[in-house]
Amino acid sequence: MAEYIESLQLLAEKFGRLEGVGKKTAMRMAFSVLELEPEDAQAFAKAILDAKEKIHLCPICQNLTDREVCSICADENRDHSVICVVTDARTVIAMEKVRDFDGVYHVLHGLISPMNGITPDQLKIKELLARVGNGDVGEVIVATNPTVEGEATAMYLSKLLRPLGIRVTRLAYGVPVGADLEYADEITLFRALEGRREV
Amino acid sequence: MAEYIESLQLLAEKFGRLEGVGKKTAMRMAFSVLELEPEDAQAFAKAILDAKEKIHLCPICQNLTDREVCSICADENRDHSVICVVTDARTVIAMEKVRDFDGVYHVLHGLISPMNGITPDQLKIKELLARVGNGDVGEVIVATNPTVEGEATAMYLSKLLRPLGIRVTRLAYGVPVGADLEYADEITLFRALEGRREV
Repeated sequence: MAEYIESLQLLAEKFGRLEGVGKKTAMRMAFSVLELEPEDAQAFAKAILDAKEKIHLCPICQNLTDREVCSICADENRDHSVICVVTDARTVIAMEKVRDFDGVYHVLHGLISPMNGITPDQLKIKELLARVGNGDVGEVIVATNPTVEGEATAMYLSKLLRPLGIRVTRLAYGVPVGADLEYADEITLFRALEGRREV
Repeated sequence: MAEYIESLQLLAEKFGRLEGVGKKTAMRMAFSVLELEPEDAQAFAKAILDAKEKIHLCPICQNLTDREVCSICADENRDHSVICVVTDARTVIAMEKVRDFDGVYHVLHGLISPMNGITPDQLKIKELLARVGNGDVGEVIVATNPTVEGEATAMYLSKLLRPLGIRVTRLAYGVPVGADLEYADEITLFRALEGRREV
């Protein structure tokens, strides 16, 4: 029985520590590891250690990188006067897929959330202020999630940056492309109506 | 951008090799590893290597174990004359949770599936025959899934074992406890009706 196999239990427990992995999934993954070829299992273990060792935060935008400065901040073809502020590194990936944004990013690593004890000083806001402080930044696009925390953080940043003469914008609200209006919630519909544009 | 962070990509790819882990989940897990404490990441890598190294098949029942003989086969309080044949090690865990079964197990490590090129000789059937060959086994309960492959394997085992004077049984079909009859499929209902018992 797996409950008696200590090393399997231990491995499942490690998988269970990852975000969004429940007990059953963790156990399934642990079993899956046993089915790997020995060299694949070794490569897996090495990949964990390598990723932990090599990846750190970009000193400019606070995004994850394995270089001194991340590839986006180092890219001279991008518009460094427009900063898109995001919650985490994953949002950067999502935004980059749009391919239409050629500015740079700033990763906050969280959202202001008094309920969870997360205050502005725990986020990378000081670093953002330092970046806009040198005067080259014209616009900050706040691309936080449309949730209470996302809104609060956007509000906070807006109050902080507007006095410095910086244009602070927010992603548009509306019905998602391809969505069925019948199933859209009222608040989204209200926002979509409010933000309607001439066609 | 994560696409450019080679070690993160590599780690996500390793997670993606595990059963049931898609591309997005794998990337989320890789990010999750970055959030671990360094010592936890090291323990994770070690757990993978340890599990691979220590766990092997029990020479008797073919279940996974880290001992010479698995704890169930080594347990003298269990009834070694009743063997429950299961597809994989995970089913053993599920069966053990019932707590009412005190026989032993035999893990086939797969099901007969000509469509997928899996023939009886690729399963641990020889090992099962060797076990029942010594004459101490009275009953073999085939606990394979109620699927085409599960049925075919049960049929095959029955034809193989019955001539040796061994009672071959199968788990009962019926409506799952707590299910709504309205949503049960016809075949299940038919089987439940067929297997009806006096109350």
